[in-house]
Amino acid sequence: MPDHNPTPEVVIDHPEQIHGYEYGTARAARSPLTLEDLERLKEVVWLTDEDEAALGDAAAILADQADEMVSAYRARLGELPWMAPYSQHPDGTPNPQYGAASKPRFDRWIIDACTRPLDQDWLNYQHEIGLRHTTAKKTKTDNADSLDHIPMRYLLAFTAVVIVTAREYLAVTGAPPEQVDRMHSAFTKSVMLHLTVWTRAYLDDPTW
Amino acid sequence: MPDHNPTPEVVIDHPEQIHGYEYGTARAARSPLTLEDLERLKEVVWLTDEDEAALGDAAAILADQADEMVSAYRARLGELPWMAPYSQHPDGTPNPQYGAASKPRFDRWIIDACTRPLDQDWLNYQHEIGLRHTTAKKTKTDNADSLDHIPMRYLLAFTAVVIVTAREYLAVTGAPPEQVDRMHSAFTKSVMLHLTVWTRAYLDDPTW
Repeated sequence: MPDHNPTPEVVIDHPEQIHGYEYGTARAARSPLTLEDLERLKEVVWLTDEDEAALGDAAAILADQADEMVSAYRARLGELPWMAPYSQHPDGTPNPQYGAASKPRFDRWIIDACTRPLDQDWLNYQHEIGLRHTTAKKTKTDNADSLDHIPMRYLLAFTAVVIVTAREYLAVTGAPPEQVDRMHSAFTKSVMLHLTVWTRAYLDDPTW
Repeated sequence: MPDHNPTPEVVIDHPEQIHGYEYGTARAARSPLTLEDLERLKEVVWLTDEDEAALGDAAAILADQADEMVSAYRARLGELPWMAPYSQHPDGTPNPQYGAASKPRFDRWIIDACTRPLDQDWLNYQHEIGLRHTTAKKTKTDNADSLDHIPMRYLLAFTAVVIVTAREYLAVTGAPPEQVDRMHSAFTKSVMLHLTVWTRAYLDDPTW
């Protein structure tokens, strides 16, 4: 794990000040999904009341590590040169401005994934995040010079890294293993729920 | 966990006798992916040599429990009435023939996910599995009377259950927690790699 790099205060306490973070605002896309669609997906990932409580515990442990987690994801992606055009300039050369602009939103996503109620605002902003992976919106929020689409396969595959590495961060305060299990299970379900909804931007009903 | 229901011997030792199990045969679909595509996806899920060794350990623990694991998945799905038309008759009434026909293949998938080398046969059969979730092939292998398409969102979302519940099965022999962690991480990566490749049946390049 890299040296501890605490999550910026603005990410934890004032996300409304993050550029392009449009959670709960009219600037976010309108999700094509209904609350009933969401309820069904929540049942399919099997997110229980106990999981929602465990996510609250996870939030308390992960919030201050969110920036470090995202740095670790990016460090891993940085080892894969063919991935560079999606987060750097289209030719793969460094684009630190884009990385810096998008990072607070990515950090905040970790906190949101543990804390946000599953409601219409959640649906809308998750759809906005999905669109920001595709030609619809990927480079628009930050007016970035980068490839304008992340293939869905990389979004899905990299989720394994997000899920697997979370365990170590959840264990950092010395919680008993059964409690780490509970938080890790709940976080896994939450991440898979987010991933599922993001893919709506890639394909239309009824295939989706 | 339900009473132990050992995996049938044919699933463990003679999968070639399972109806519709076309791994390594010319009857399986030809994957549109290249071995280079696969190598990249393996890098993105971050499946390491250590993970591949841990999958071998996981196989020894899970093989005899595969049937029970699939029964548990189906028991959970059975609690969600709107999911019934995908695995039962189109009107949701029980279709035990379809369930019985597809179960040995699903059981065997758990073993394959821990043991099969990532090669052209793997690519081909995973694409076959992907197609068997869509209108291309869902009901054809078993000539089943059931809905002919599983929406991708349910495939993605239910993967959370497969990942989360695996931990308990991996722990059943009393392996030390660090070893359970290693096996569970490796299994998670393998499952996400499979899931990623299966979704190729749902959408075309270059979006995928």
